[in-house]
Amino acid sequence: MPKGHVFIGTSVDGFIARRDGDIGWLTGFSSLGEDHGYNAHMAKLDGIVMGRGTFESVKDIEPWFYEKKVLVLSRTLANSDVPQSLRSKVEIINASPDEATRIAEERGWRGVYIDGGAVIQSFLRAGLIDDMVISRVPVLIGEGLPLFGALDADVMLEHVSTTSFPSGLVQSHYRIKR
Amino acid sequence: MPKGHVFIGTSVDGFIARRDGDIGWLTGFSSLGEDHGYNAHMAKLDGIVMGRGTFESVKDIEPWFYEKKVLVLSRTLANSDVPQSLRSKVEIINASPDEATRIAEERGWRGVYIDGGAVIQSFLRAGLIDDMVISRVPVLIGEGLPLFGALDADVMLEHVSTTSFPSGLVQSHYRIKR
Repeated sequence: MPKGHVFIGTSVDGFIARRDGDIGWLTGFSSLGEDHGYNAHMAKLDGIVMGRGTFESVKDIEPWFYEKKVLVLSRTLANSDVPQSLRSKVEIINASPDEATRIAEERGWRGVYIDGGAVIQSFLRAGLIDDMVISRVPVLIGEGLPLFGALDADVMLEHVSTTSFPSGLVQSHYRIKR
Repeated sequence: MPKGHVFIGTSVDGFIARRDGDIGWLTGFSSLGEDHGYNAHMAKLDGIVMGRGTFESVKDIEPWFYEKKVLVLSRTLANSDVPQSLRSKVEIINASPDEATRIAEERGWRGVYIDGGAVIQSFLRAGLIDDMVISRVPVLIGEGLPLFGALDADVMLEHVSTTSFPSGLVQSHYRIKR
């Protein structure tokens, strides 16, 4: 079974975006010259699963950001909604986390990057996340889209490592205990 | 003006207690032999401001936990609601964060320990928190009483330091930027 990996930035109060999806507070955060390991992380993975919201927030950004193939979970979008230029790179699937993981397995993926708050939460609930790298930028934004949400039961974590950077970004790596 | 200091434990998803106030997941977390600095932190402070909820969750625990004087913010409690044995140590005040800070100043306090989610949030909104030490234990509890809440505006933080412990507890120290 492919393993789900999370690598995401949040505010210290746990949001990944403002209510309207704005991430200027995150992307505009000055951490010049720091390597937070995103590229090294992605290089180890085989593909990406994201939600419709995340896809719609990135689909018109040129050049297309992702080198790996992307599966977009959506009950409403179809492949015809994917811009022509992205059709070899993006596939819409109407699938649960379990089904998406099975599809990833059929693709031969072993490591899958899980992106977007709602999708991360549903994969966590389904026990399909292996580890998480959470990078907290030093700001409280008060409200927005939270990284975490309701669970059926506590999820115990194993702390792997934490690194802080001169910019004030604090990055913690956790493995999910089973 | 006295300065407000926060020193608090949370889950990785940012809760300080379950909905019913239970903190067994926090107090039962095994970190034997680790000094997270609580006593050293408290030793530098002159008194404590807490909310009614926090007070009611600790008032019947014997022996009384706090060495420093406690001001309890409440619109509904009176000093007569304080157990006899605590009357020299605890005072109920019906006060806003600004008023409570003024009362602390009248007491000659310089450093004030601010305790409890709702009170921390109201002091943050009022600009009365100087710094925060947040200790995250490696668990997601899904729902509960959050450390942070709505703000009138973003609060920029300065990262002072982060320490991780063998137990998996990660402690970050932030100063509030003005």
